[in-house]
Amino acid sequence: MSEKKRRAGAAAAGPASSSKKPRASAAASYAESLRSKLRPDASILATLRSLASASASSSKSKAAAKFLADHDPPDDPTSSYIVVADQDSASVTSRINRLVLAAARSILSGRGFSFAVPSRAASNQVYLPDLDRIVLLHRESARPFANVATARKATVTARVLSLVHAVLRRGIHVTKRDLFYTDVKLFGDQSQSDAVLDDVSCMLGCTRSSLHVVASEKGVVVGRLVFADDGDRIDCTRMGVGGKAIPPNIDRVSGIESDALFILLVEKDAAFMRLAEDRFYNRFPCIILTAKGQPDVATRLFLRRLKVELKLPVLALVDSDPYGLKILSVYMCGSKNMSYDSANLTTPDIKWLGVRPSDLDKYRVPEQCRLPMTDHDIKVGKELLEEDFVKQNEGWVKELETMLRTRQKAEIQALSSFGFQYLTEVYLPLKLQQQDWI
Amino acid sequence: MSEKKRRAGAAAAGPASSSKKPRASAAASYAESLRSKLRPDASILATLRSLASASASSSKSKAAAKFLADHDPPDDPTSSYIVVADQDSASVTSRINRLVLAAARSILSGRGFSFAVPSRAASNQVYLPDLDRIVLLHRESARPFANVATARKATVTARVLSLVHAVLRRGIHVTKRDLFYTDVKLFGDQSQSDAVLDDVSCMLGCTRSSLHVVASEKGVVVGRLVFADDGDRIDCTRMGVGGKAIPPNIDRVSGIESDALFILLVEKDAAFMRLAEDRFYNRFPCIILTAKGQPDVATRLFLRRLKVELKLPVLALVDSDPYGLKILSVYMCGSKNMSYDSANLTTPDIKWLGVRPSDLDKYRVPEQCRLPMTDHDIKVGKELLEEDFVKQNEGWVKELETMLRTRQKAEIQALSSFGFQYLTEVYLPLKLQQQDWI
Repeated sequence: MSEKKRRAGAAAAGPASSSKKPRASAAASYAESLRSKLRPDASILATLRSLASASASSSKSKAAAKFLADHDPPDDPTSSYIVVADQDSASVTSRINRLVLAAARSILSGRGFSFAVPSRAASNQVYLPDLDRIVLLHRESARPFANVATARKATVTARVLSLVHAVLRRGIHVTKRDLFYTDVKLFGDQSQSDAVLDDVSCMLGCTRSSLHVVASEKGVVVGRLVFADDGDRIDCTRMGVGGKAIPPNIDRVSGIESDALFILLVEKDAAFMRLAEDRFYNRFPCIILTAKGQPDVATRLFLRRLKVELKLPVLALVDSDPYGLKILSVYMCGSKNMSYDSANLTTPDIKWLGVRPSDLDKYRVPEQCRLPMTDHDIKVGKELLEEDFVKQNEGWVKELETMLRTRQKAEIQALSSFGFQYLTEVYLPLKLQQQDWI
Repeated sequence: MSEKKRRAGAAAAGPASSSKKPRASAAASYAESLRSKLRPDASILATLRSLASASASSSKSKAAAKFLADHDPPDDPTSSYIVVADQDSASVTSRINRLVLAAARSILSGRGFSFAVPSRAASNQVYLPDLDRIVLLHRESARPFANVATARKATVTARVLSLVHAVLRRGIHVTKRDLFYTDVKLFGDQSQSDAVLDDVSCMLGCTRSSLHVVASEKGVVVGRLVFADDGDRIDCTRMGVGGKAIPPNIDRVSGIESDALFILLVEKDAAFMRLAEDRFYNRFPCIILTAKGQPDVATRLFLRRLKVELKLPVLALVDSDPYGLKILSVYMCGSKNMSYDSANLTTPDIKWLGVRPSDLDKYRVPEQCRLPMTDHDIKVGKELLEEDFVKQNEGWVKELETMLRTRQKAEIQALSSFGFQYLTEVYLPLKLQQQDWI
């Protein structure tokens, strides 16, 4: 039975909705007509193969590759911004030892002690167009123990340094919450130990994962990917519909292998589930991953590792609203409060595949599946138009302007109005065939 | 180097916190002294083995086994409450056909049509002590199309029936969100299509998973478990630290095998990560799972499946606060808004292993790691004391009374104050050794 017939049968079973049929049918039959535009998979695969090989050779991608490879030495005083790097436990431990010894010497010489902490104030952060990400500048503030204003924070800093030292010596990983609980009375609330942990990361010039303090994971991955999680070999084509949970500690991930042609980054788990159940990655070899909404650190680190090691193009499937774009920006440029670690957390050159504001008309998404933007949406959208990372991509500016002009948004799931598998059977294949990403 | 020495070394590295040391040290050294009480693992394993075999033979467990096996036939009019059951697609489809044919006949005979929908009002729900769960009684309300008050809802019901029919014919699974988007204009907002979906589930006498409408998953599992997810064989001892994401569609899970002695149900992902990284399941053969907070439907279905097929005891590790207990109650007795499906979603006879209010003194959790209960906490705690499912377990009542008297709560992570691995190295082994669950 054809999909069309199936849908017709389904519609017939819903007698009460017939009053709205004429309009919905027009959109639906147009949407179905797009199916006939699809070329054979072999032809689409050829497109994808050229995309994948271009990803290693084009000038833009070369810049990205350079970006991914380049790390200024973390303590290089000539660099105009702070770059933290992954460090092994021995090296982080010895950095802590050096800091503590310096403090001890300072105390013995009668000068008390003070930490020099890079300032993470907004005024010390800047977006660098060359790097295409937010970085932290070099301004530091002193945190002397012998000062009423900073005594507490200096104490907290010393305590966090000692705790990180203990974690590294045991060779284990802990969460920020664990860290907080080792001394609730001192830290007061978790936001304080978290903030100081970020300070310590800057002070030591290493990433938070090097400190073995991890965030809880929520991302999942399926598709043409094999890797080792803490030594266990994981074949992501054999992870059913649920997928493999992305490990919280990226330094236990190794042996990444793949025959995928691209990475498909998905905003929501509903779309992820559709793609996993339909085994989309077997039709078009790809790696599919989602952070289920706002990206967490573990998923960002994992995506970056995939990009660095496999050099695959990354295509993003997000909602057509300001938050979809904002999520893209976090993956690509990082978030402000972790700007010091932007080099390790960000993945440059992500293509916006869909759902884009222009898709709504192009695919004739029915009016009733579009949602009016709220005042807050419009505010966020306008703010995004001012962001450097949006401005430098003309296509993105146009799309965002379209969104703000029409004042309409839509979720990925809106495509379900053409049939539950429209996403995997028509929309995505057509997008790939037409190389319709920006 | 011993753990004690390590901790001492760590403490020495944190010079500024010395003022609080004496008290913390007393608790810490007591906590450490508990380590010496631990018998060899072989002896603890013997305890667990007897627990596991008891789980198949004790009278209480027999009742549970009966409970798990017994399903009143879903349409049995003699039963005093509604029981929905898992049904295969063919059977659900034919039930829908019958409903629609009845409606058609009714229309042709000039009487219009009306759905008889089981009422899901609180007054139609009751906790049955014999069954140890919340059930839905038989009261129904009519939903005629030819009535201004119900015309819309009857329309929505017909539409949802038709959509479910379409999903079943395609043999796929969709999310509630997908369903909503097929007709946004009719449904208005998702809470309406969700509510009608629950109605349809009751009307058809089948579970929501039988309708192939799934919730997004957030649970993860590791440990001594092998199962097939959509045909892919998953070995949960080889899922690294991240674990395997629990599949959203339980009917694609098959071939469950395990050599575990118990199932460890964990409230939070931080504790899950600790257990996974320390490979706790290799020392004490178990299956470890978490829903990362409030349990979702997929995790509850999965736990129940494990319990039914493996007949293992289930031990729960939750925060020592009213929400920890509330989470236990959802696993055990179900939530009110899905009472019609409580037989399929609940797992009876879960033991409360920890962290229990009495543990705080028993393990001398330092004062600074305990948190004062808020007014809202106290309110929730008092409400729980009135719940039948708490009342019937004397031990639980005592613990809850202790919590309310001391007005203190604590998270699982509070145990980190004795060292990050105290949970896996001392607390849990000692609990298991002492059979300290209620």
